[in-house]
Amino acid sequence: MSSKKGFDEKDALAITALRMLAVDMVEKANSGHPGLPLGASPMAYVLWTRLMRHNPANPLWANRDRFVLSAGHGSAMLYSLLHLCGYGLTMDELKNFRQWGSRTPGHPERGLTPGVETTTGPLGQGIANAVGMAWAESLLAAQFNRPGFAVADHRTFAICGDGDLMEGVALEAISLAGHLKLGKLVMLYDDNHITIEGDTQLAFTEDVGAKFRACGWHVEEASDGNDPAVILAAVERAQASCGGKPCLVKVRTVIGYGSPVQGKASVHGEPLGKHMPQTRAFYKWPEETFHVPQEARAQFESAGREGAKFQGQWEELFKSYSEKYPQEAAEFRRQMSGELPKGWKDALPRFRPEDGQVATRDASGKVINALGEVLPGFLGGSADLAPSNKTAFAKHPERTLHFGIREHAMGAVVNGMALHGGLLPFGATFMAFSDYMRPAIRLAALSHIHSLFVFTHDGIGVGEDGPTHQPVEQLSALRVIPGLLVFRPADANEASAVWAAAVEKKRPACLMFTRQKLPVLGLPMEKIMEGAARGAYVVFESAGKKHEVAFLASGSEVSIAMDAAKALDAEGVGCRVVSMPSFELFNEQDQAYRDAVLPPSLKKRVAVEAASSMSWLRYVGEQGRCVCVDRFGASAPYQTIYEKYGLTAENVRRTAREILG
Amino acid sequence: MSSKKGFDEKDALAITALRMLAVDMVEKANSGHPGLPLGASPMAYVLWTRLMRHNPANPLWANRDRFVLSAGHGSAMLYSLLHLCGYGLTMDELKNFRQWGSRTPGHPERGLTPGVETTTGPLGQGIANAVGMAWAESLLAAQFNRPGFAVADHRTFAICGDGDLMEGVALEAISLAGHLKLGKLVMLYDDNHITIEGDTQLAFTEDVGAKFRACGWHVEEASDGNDPAVILAAVERAQASCGGKPCLVKVRTVIGYGSPVQGKASVHGEPLGKHMPQTRAFYKWPEETFHVPQEARAQFESAGREGAKFQGQWEELFKSYSEKYPQEAAEFRRQMSGELPKGWKDALPRFRPEDGQVATRDASGKVINALGEVLPGFLGGSADLAPSNKTAFAKHPERTLHFGIREHAMGAVVNGMALHGGLLPFGATFMAFSDYMRPAIRLAALSHIHSLFVFTHDGIGVGEDGPTHQPVEQLSALRVIPGLLVFRPADANEASAVWAAAVEKKRPACLMFTRQKLPVLGLPMEKIMEGAARGAYVVFESAGKKHEVAFLASGSEVSIAMDAAKALDAEGVGCRVVSMPSFELFNEQDQAYRDAVLPPSLKKRVAVEAASSMSWLRYVGEQGRCVCVDRFGASAPYQTIYEKYGLTAENVRRTAREILG
Repeated sequence: MSSKKGFDEKDALAITALRMLAVDMVEKANSGHPGLPLGASPMAYVLWTRLMRHNPANPLWANRDRFVLSAGHGSAMLYSLLHLCGYGLTMDELKNFRQWGSRTPGHPERGLTPGVETTTGPLGQGIANAVGMAWAESLLAAQFNRPGFAVADHRTFAICGDGDLMEGVALEAISLAGHLKLGKLVMLYDDNHITIEGDTQLAFTEDVGAKFRACGWHVEEASDGNDPAVILAAVERAQASCGGKPCLVKVRTVIGYGSPVQGKASVHGEPLGKHMPQTRAFYKWPEETFHVPQEARAQFESAGREGAKFQGQWEELFKSYSEKYPQEAAEFRRQMSGELPKGWKDALPRFRPEDGQVATRDASGKVINALGEVLPGFLGGSADLAPSNKTAFAKHPERTLHFGIREHAMGAVVNGMALHGGLLPFGATFMAFSDYMRPAIRLAALSHIHSLFVFTHDGIGVGEDGPTHQPVEQLSALRVIPGLLVFRPADANEASAVWAAAVEKKRPACLMFTRQKLPVLGLPMEKIMEGAARGAYVVFESAGKKHEVAFLASGSEVSIAMDAAKALDAEGVGCRVVSMPSFELFNEQDQAYRDAVLPPSLKKRVAVEAASSMSWLRYVGEQGRCVCVDRFGASAPYQTIYEKYGLTAENVRRTAREILG
Repeated sequence: MSSKKGFDEKDALAITALRMLAVDMVEKANSGHPGLPLGASPMAYVLWTRLMRHNPANPLWANRDRFVLSAGHGSAMLYSLLHLCGYGLTMDELKNFRQWGSRTPGHPERGLTPGVETTTGPLGQGIANAVGMAWAESLLAAQFNRPGFAVADHRTFAICGDGDLMEGVALEAISLAGHLKLGKLVMLYDDNHITIEGDTQLAFTEDVGAKFRACGWHVEEASDGNDPAVILAAVERAQASCGGKPCLVKVRTVIGYGSPVQGKASVHGEPLGKHMPQTRAFYKWPEETFHVPQEARAQFESAGREGAKFQGQWEELFKSYSEKYPQEAAEFRRQMSGELPKGWKDALPRFRPEDGQVATRDASGKVINALGEVLPGFLGGSADLAPSNKTAFAKHPERTLHFGIREHAMGAVVNGMALHGGLLPFGATFMAFSDYMRPAIRLAALSHIHSLFVFTHDGIGVGEDGPTHQPVEQLSALRVIPGLLVFRPADANEASAVWAAAVEKKRPACLMFTRQKLPVLGLPMEKIMEGAARGAYVVFESAGKKHEVAFLASGSEVSIAMDAAKALDAEGVGCRVVSMPSFELFNEQDQAYRDAVLPPSLKKRVAVEAASSMSWLRYVGEQGRCVCVDRFGASAPYQTIYEKYGLTAENVRRTAREILG
């Protein structure tokens, strides 16, 4: 690690350039947050030019240090850093801050802007993402590093604010990081004593340092956030003495520093406007906007050149590693690329009806363990419900992650691991508690992260635990999130198939499984695999009769719909049953396939699902009917609840009869 | 406070009776959680018989001590306590544990079982509820107590487990409680070192005591959770020396104590089954199930009698208070009853079109301040966004609550305040962050709590802050929660009207308001008030023409629909516009009203809303069309986004033309 303690006038100039560039962006957009860039630019400068090993020419270098701006409202500072360091973000993009179609949206969006490691803005998420990245690094190090070959060996840095540190998701992740002893995680706390409503004394008076220490962190303070040497010294002190603990460096800053409104809440999120001339004067900055002196630019560029050297050294190391450990190197490359090994699907378990009923959570557990054999980077765990979620890796205990009872952090940590690359992570809990992690699920969808979420106990089939533990509205509420795949398989084989789709599609996905046992339907596996990958398919159809009614169902209700259909069929009514494990994938199929599964002329439709009807209305039409659950569940043996709620083959059959007239 | 330090054999017998009654319930149900009752019954016994002032004959006595079993899976213990203390929960109900229609569901449900103060089970919520109750008490004390007359003066007790203490919602609430110095809050931590996956060493190794101290709590330890004297002494020590800080008492327990599987994870949530004989033998308990020796019952009953005395003393006090402070006493009674004062609606502000456009968040801010004048118990605040949410009380700063950036705790704390009674509380944040508090919103709905949630910045109208801050799917996701009222008013006057409905209906409700300015539509206020209370109503209709198309919209899109309708009307097409501020209330109207607003024959319908189409599908039908937003938002000035997303009068008009053919 290079660390030139000495900071000189060029550094001061570069820091001012960073501050003013960010502020000019906010002014031009007439929207945004000048407070954080003015206060936190010195620490960002220290990180990006003295501490981080990053290569602007290759933002995806596998072993780069990760950086998370958890306080995502400071986006103008991040974009300015990316521009100045040479990440290919043009000055025009900076001038287009917060405008339609730009790469510089209001809050950083992963995938849109090279060098942005994660989408932040919703507070606390970035801290948990950073924990996930640091955990991923330590897991990959354990998997791949060999004596003398630390191929996975980087640090994760984050900048956070007061808001981040009040959020539960962050508090959960902080506790987890301390427990895991993630010693390469370094978080800088932009400690400016100001929140939107005013002084932090209004609502935030805890002893932050003591709290982190109680959680197993090492804490250092940088008393002057305007002095880069003080900041650098504090980080180096922290790294030297942390003893393998994650580090928090409290950096005392002044929000909006240098502006006439410094230290005031108003400078957080409002353009400086009329205060700009005084601010420019304070920094002795020319009137020209978006001004970057060449000496300032050179400071950032030299850090970039050093980053290229770091990558070069790592490439050398990896070359030797490849010679000595060719298999490991090949697997490292494969995992980092996200490619799937040939024939991986052959490992998927198949289930036979004659072997008896199987809860899909049990089937999922078998799939997880089978995939574990062929996908070494596949790992995950539960928010303390592994015995119920069936998520433990029997043969690879090191891949069973223990998130603790921290659903929200689990979601954001899984996102961080997936963002890091090299791993295919999942997190699990009861489906009713998917609500606890919804903001993280949303960000996975918004950021196109390949995070997988396993939700067992997926309806009123939970039984005795009652309505607090029975999801009802969660299915619709998840299906409505744009870009999220929501899978609910009908039986054990479909559980295999949806796992395959969730792995293969490389998109954020939720997989729902039952607590209760279900019949194995006994369709050909190829049909199930294709059907699940296309989101919906016909699982039963009357032979030799015109189909008068279609039953649409997912999960545990497919077999109920099948029984109803068979009864009707026996009565001479032609019908079909469509299993719909993923609405999203079905909606993406071409019209011909969709019409083949759900013929437009087949208007009599009955949707059956132990969940709210809302998401089904798109399919049932005006002549259709939903046998769904538009109220909360109840505490009783699940068979009783199904009976009382009308989720029986007989009621489904009767409903079909009613609409048939 | 009576505190007989001496515990004798009768107490020991009573504690065993409590343990065994709970375990017998679990065995009979063949479902439930024996681990907590066996470990935590001594501390529950100490609370319920020595520390709490509660009157089983009147579970709703205003000044009772509140008790929250945050670890709601210990429900069998709570029901046994209620039975033994004489809350009217019969032995038959205990025998019916976890069965259909019983008052003893798997997890405690508020409203169903007398003496159950709040619904728990989803972990962490109970802690935050308890914080809300303790805060409510302190706010009521500040409002009503006079020298010598502490009419609001009680403590709030909670029992929590490891799981509670890992949850972010609890961590947020703990930080808030310390900040608020809620010295009458006493939390007992059932510290058994076991979670479902095994030893807490797996995922939870922080120093809990130090963390609480860092958050401003006083911490005591009870080294032996089986010794009631040790527990009582620790609580009394805490209360004597806390200096106005909330108290945590760590009670070292053994999960499943006395059973052969004590100290093991498996005893948490599985019936003891074959281990029952040994457990009975350990406790020298007869084979007869549901056995309660008379001496044991007498212990609980005597505590109940003492509770009646406490209430009697308080009634005396309140009588004198009523004489000296008749107005305050009357207001105290009114607030505790939840009745609304006569003529309160007259205070609601009205807005005139000629005064210019008004953002509904600004209108809401005016309503909040106006209601504050006539409803002294009405208070609330924001998760640090008051200047944006417009939720501050200008004339009554003491009613502006500062929740900090803790949305989830805010939700659960508001629930706790509403559950306490005497106050009408609300919490506010950006609507995109309603996701952070979704589990608390769900519990408000499940428990029928009169919690109000204000969500401003209610769509892509947020503009430059971009997709992380723009709700899109949240409207459908909230509308799908059973029993929750979701209001999205069309203009400033409708904002007044939905506030009136939210206050009057006494049901959990979310109120959505815009960041951007909207025209004031200028309908008669009576029509708006009635229309909003009925959920939907006609706000524009072509005169003298058959209506060929209906526009359905909510919030900021109503004026867009109106413009489209007026353009079509001018072209000779008869149409109407229906504002739908609350789907839920509209669905509850009789068929005649619903048909009058949305005539079944009027099949050409266009729904317009800057949000997902999912919740509209119920209304538009097969011939209708949605002009909605089924993707994430974008960062740009909001007018640009509206244009790009097709949310313009012209596009709405064109869509209507298309379906008219």
